[in-house]
Parts: sequence; structure tokens; C-alpha cells
Amino acid sequence: MTDKNLCQLPPVKAVLNSLAKNRITFQMYDDVRVEPTDQSFMDAITFAKKEEFDAYVAVGGGSVIDTCKAANLYASSPESDFLDYVNAPIGKGKSVTVPLKPFIAVPTTAGTGSETTGIAIFDYKELKVKTGIASRAIKPTLGMIDPLHTLHMPERVVANGGFDVLCHALEAYTALPYKMRSPCPSNPINRPAYQGSNPISDVWAVHALRIVAKYLKRAVRMPDDHEARANMHLASAFAGIGFGNAGVHLWTVIPHLLSNLLIYSNLYYYIILTNILSNHLRLCLILGADIRTAKIKDAGLILADTLRKFLFDLNVDDGLAAIGYSKADIPALVKGTLPQERVTKLAPRPQTEEELSALFEASMKLY
Amino acid sequence: MTDKNLCQLPPVKAVLNSLAKNRITFQMYDDVRVEPTDQSFMDAITFAKKEEFDAYVAVGGGSVIDTCKAANLYASSPESDFLDYVNAPIGKGKSVTVPLKPFIAVPTTAGTGSETTGIAIFDYKELKVKTGIASRAIKPTLGMIDPLHTLHMPERVVANGGFDVLCHALEAYTALPYKMRSPCPSNPINRPAYQGSNPISDVWAVHALRIVAKYLKRAVRMPDDHEARANMHLASAFAGIGFGNAGVHLWTVIPHLLSNLLIYSNLYYYIILTNILSNHLRLCLILGADIRTAKIKDAGLILADTLRKFLFDLNVDDGLAAIGYSKADIPALVKGTLPQERVTKLAPRPQTEEELSALFEASMKLY
Repeated sequence: MTDKNLCQLPPVKAVLNSLAKNRITFQMYDDVRVEPTDQSFMDAITFAKKEEFDAYVAVGGGSVIDTCKAANLYASSPESDFLDYVNAPIGKGKSVTVPLKPFIAVPTTAGTGSETTGIAIFDYKELKVKTGIASRAIKPTLGMIDPLHTLHMPERVVANGGFDVLCHALEAYTALPYKMRSPCPSNPINRPAYQGSNPISDVWAVHALRIVAKYLKRAVRMPDDHEARANMHLASAFAGIGFGNAGVHLWTVIPHLLSNLLIYSNLYYYIILTNILSNHLRLCLILGADIRTAKIKDAGLILADTLRKFLFDLNVDDGLAAIGYSKADIPALVKGTLPQERVTKLAPRPQTEEELSALFEASMKLY
Repeated sequence: MTDKNLCQLPPVKAVLNSLAKNRITFQMYDDVRVEPTDQSFMDAITFAKKEEFDAYVAVGGGSVIDTCKAANLYASSPESDFLDYVNAPIGKGKSVTVPLKPFIAVPTTAGTGSETTGIAIFDYKELKVKTGIASRAIKPTLGMIDPLHTLHMPERVVANGGFDVLCHALEAYTALPYKMRSPCPSNPINRPAYQGSNPISDVWAVHALRIVAKYLKRAVRMPDDHEARANMHLASAFAGIGFGNAGVHLWTVIPHLLSNLLIYSNLYYYIILTNILSNHLRLCLILGADIRTAKIKDAGLILADTLRKFLFDLNVDDGLAAIGYSKADIPALVKGTLPQERVTKLAPRPQTEEELSALFEASMKLY
């Protein structure tokens, strides 16, 4: 599985050559939609159900890998309705009990970390929300993290993917601790894939953030800096292990990749009201802020400023307004956010409709 | 599986109660030998072969978990000779291709991290060497890392286990990088369990070391400090993930647990001759040494001093002499070291017989 753009590029060619060399018969599906929808997932599922495939290989970014997760799942569970496995309350959120086929993910972007997670995200058109399928069962069997596959990425893709990594790491680290999530399942095996921050996810989130602080700007500005691109590719997987296990919270609810990033620096104004400020100061330090004279109550503000500087240094668009949103869109944005309890409940504090509205409004312009 | 001491203690009772409550029929083997030998492994294997067990549960330290790994392996491969899976050149080092039974490991010490590794270590009496079985296939299916299980540990067990964690972390981080190991296998799947240090094992090794620096002394000195014991229990698993993946090098070759620790501070005098000194300075910093005016060429000496101070602060015996070794034992110690290429080749530089001899001699007394 891949997409129309990638099938012309070296990573797909490398896989096709390897399949030919090893005389493995295969069929290629290159109709993956970037930013998948329920319809594009279903198209891929229909393709996967047509034959008895022994294994899957996804070559691409998060959209390709997520689509392949869905195809593998529903082809292995042919009687299921599409909504059976989609997260509640939008879908039925059923547990996956069928065995899936082996699945190799070859990421070609440094951003989503999808090769490390059991999560497949799509836009559910009817309700205009971003939702997904979350189960350890759909995680790829093997991820091949080869930095040579990221050398074709244009500068903007590196920058946006790098911010995805940054956000994943920040969100995983600041997600509600797993002990504070409610409801607490009666058996740990029933914990959701997004179980809240924990001592394992913290290790990965913090480590990924250190790599971002050191390498992201180099990776964006110097396409030939293989060391920086290799490290960002690893950081993408590391942050994926972190957030795939801890969860993400508010930013994921925004139905557009870039807007996730733009809203971020304002999100931190918001979180300043919580009591996990010392964690925020630790994040500031890793991102290079001078916190020697910082007061702990200012941690949210300092983190927001640090993130804003990051966005500015990398020429990211100036807020939601710069990518086409206006005040008139805010009610719809809020409405799309509210049903996504799986993630919103992991935010360090609960949100009212009014607070979400103010958050979107404050994110219209950043600099 | 457990040992005679543990079967009187709360962790085993908790497992027995759980088995009874869930009406699971079982047999208990409590003859595990602390510091297992080929004979004690074979006794456990004979027990495991007598019945068709569906699953294994090991409750104990590294000796129990390692013995259970061997029992699960050979009961699942009943035609194999004991030496078939033992590391070459002592055994045949065959790959494990048979399916093993599910295996739950419940560690009761914070030290070996055996619940995270595919390694089972024993003393091979005939050759007077420590060797083992290394395969991802023998790794427990699940580890249950519950700090309440470590509260019964006496102070010396906490101290010695803590040094095991310290050594695992240091060794994993300073092991030869995986790209420099030779021979390089033609296919990555054929890399040994000890594949050399790499970006993943580095994360775990460094993180475990940070926990050791913060919590080990507290865990030893204050038995009621649950936070410290819980963190050391996690650090044991973290260091296990690190060294189980990167490998360890020189210290493992010494055929006695405590001597591993004692020889350590001298080992670092030795490694100072290598060119990975900046890594050593990073370790010094994590362990609390003041390196502001340190010269990079002194990194080995500073690390040795830092480790010596750790040993001294925790009342560890003063060198190999204090635990009963004398100069007359050195030739036998060297002879036991030489055949263990699986680990010695991961040391940052090769060793001659004379150098090993000098290393043992210098480790007779530490303070």
C-alpha cells in the first residue's frame, strides 16, 4: 500500500525491487488518500478483501500506514461493520479478537510515528470529526526505520512532520497520568491504547523531545544533513512509542494536521492552570529556554513562548487564520472536539465549551 | 518456579492465592538454585518435561527466571541435547525455532532485569565458566513489575542488586556500537541477542542510570522508602531492556555476582584507553560527579573514582580479596574469561591475557 505520489519515489521502488528479487507475488494499492476519510479507508478495505493476502507492506507516511492498519483489520474480520471497531462514542469501540496478518510498515516521513502505534486516524465525513481505530492488535508487526527513505522529503514536509513529533512528545508527557484516568478498568488488559502518561511513555517522550531540540532545525534547513534527518526519523518512532502508549490530548481533536501545530502555543497558556507546572519547566529546559530565574507559576507561559519561537524560526504559518479559518468556523471546531472523549479526557484538566471556544479564538494568530 | 527461600515469602503466596482463586491446576518447583549450574538447569528441565504444562510462572530473582527460561525451552524441544542451545563456543549456539509456552515472570529482586531479556545464565561446572543461552525466543511473555514484591529484600540484597543495575546500564552504554561488531551477519535477523550498543539501548541504559543515581542509596538505607524501591525495581527492568539488547561486556565474565561489582571500578581504568571518552564523561555527570573542569582524557579515571565512591558509600566489600580470592586464583579467572567471546568481543577494546590478568590483580583491593 502506498499513495500516488510515493509510488514514483525511491522508497517504493526499493520495496518493489526487493519483492521482485525474492520472487514474491503481490498486488499494489496506490490509492491511499493523504488525510484519510471513512470512504478512503473503506476503498482500501474493499481492495484487501478481494484476495487472500498473506501479509501487508505499507510504504509511506501516517496516512498510508493507518490505511493499511484498517485494511488488515477488516479483511481479517470480514463480517464486521466499519463502525464496529471505530472509537466510541462515534463507533462501537469493540475489542479486536481476530488474528491479523503480518504487517511491515516502512515510514517515509518523520512525523506520525504510525509504525509504532496501534492507532489509525481518519476524518469521519458525516460528523465532520477526526476519529480512529485504536487497538494494540493493529500495530504493525515490524517497522523499518531507514533514514534514506526520508531524503526525498521537501523542506515543508520535514518542518511539519517535525512539529508533529514535537507535539506528540509534549502531549504524551503532559497527558493525565495513567493512575488518574477514569474510569479505571477492572483488569489492566482492558486499559485503552491511550492509557495516560506513565514511567515508560515518559522516557520516550522526553528522549524524543531532546532529539527535536537538537536536530529539527538542522533537518529542515539543511537537506543534506543526513545525521539530522536520521535522528528526526528515530525521534518520530520514539515519540510514537510514547504517545501510542500514553495518548495525546487536546491537539489531536483539531481536524487538520497543520492546525494542530498552530493551536499549540496557545494550548499551553491554557494548561498553565493545572498543577503539573514543574513538568512544564522540564520541557522548557529541554527545548533550550533559560529557566534559571523562572518562577514555577510561569511555566505555561514560558513553554508557550518557547514553542512560539520554534514555530516562528521554522516559518510555520501564523495561526489558524493564515490557513483559512475564521471566527465563523469556531462553533464547528468546538462541536468536532466535544465527542472525542478518548483524547480530551487525557488533557491535564477538563474543558468547557466556552474554554475550547476561547482556545480556538486565541489561536487564530500566533506571532 | 521459585526457590526454597522465596516460597515462604509474600510474592509466592500472592501467586499461589491467585492460582487457587482462579482454579488453575499447577505444580510448584521450588528447587531452583541461586546462581544456577548446568546441573540445576537440568533438574528443572527434567521436572518440566514430566508433564504437559500449558504455561510457566517464575517468581523470584534472576536465578529463578533464568532457570524457568531453560525449562520452558528444553521442555518445548524435548529432542535437543543440553549443549545445543548453549552459547558457542562452549555449546552449539543453535537458533531456537520451536514454539515455547507462555511464560509470566514476576521479579522479586531489583537487579538482574531477567524478566526483560532472552538470556539465561548458568555456571558450567566442568569448564568452571559462566555461560548461558541467548535467544529472543526464551524471553518471558509478560513481566509483572510490582514494587510490593521487593519490600522483603534485606539491605545487602538491595545494595548488590542495585549495583547489578548500575553495571548493566554502564556496560550496555559502553558496549561496542552494533555497527562495529564483527562478524556482521548477512541478515539483521541473525544478529545475536547481544548486538552491541544502539540508539534504543542507549535510551534505556542512560535512563536506568539516572534512576540509580537518584534512588539507589535511598532504597538501600531506608527500607520503608517505597518510592525509592519502586523506582529501583523499574530501573532494573529498564537496564535489562538496555543490556538485553546491547549486551554487556567484561564484567559478566567473572564467575561470581559480587566480584562483578568489585572489579568494576578498575575496569574503567582499563577502558580509559579507548576513544569513547566523551560517553564516559556523560556517565560521570549522571552519577553526580563534578565535571566542570574535567579533561576528556581523564574521563575513565573520573568514572572509576565515581564508581569507587558509590561502592564505598554502600559498604560493598573491599575488592576480590575481601570475598576470598587471592593472587593464586588469577590464572583460573583469566582462563574462565577467555572463551566467552560473546561478551568479551563487545568490550570497547580487545583484551590480551596479560591485560586481563592485570585487571584482576588491580581489583583485589579497591578503596
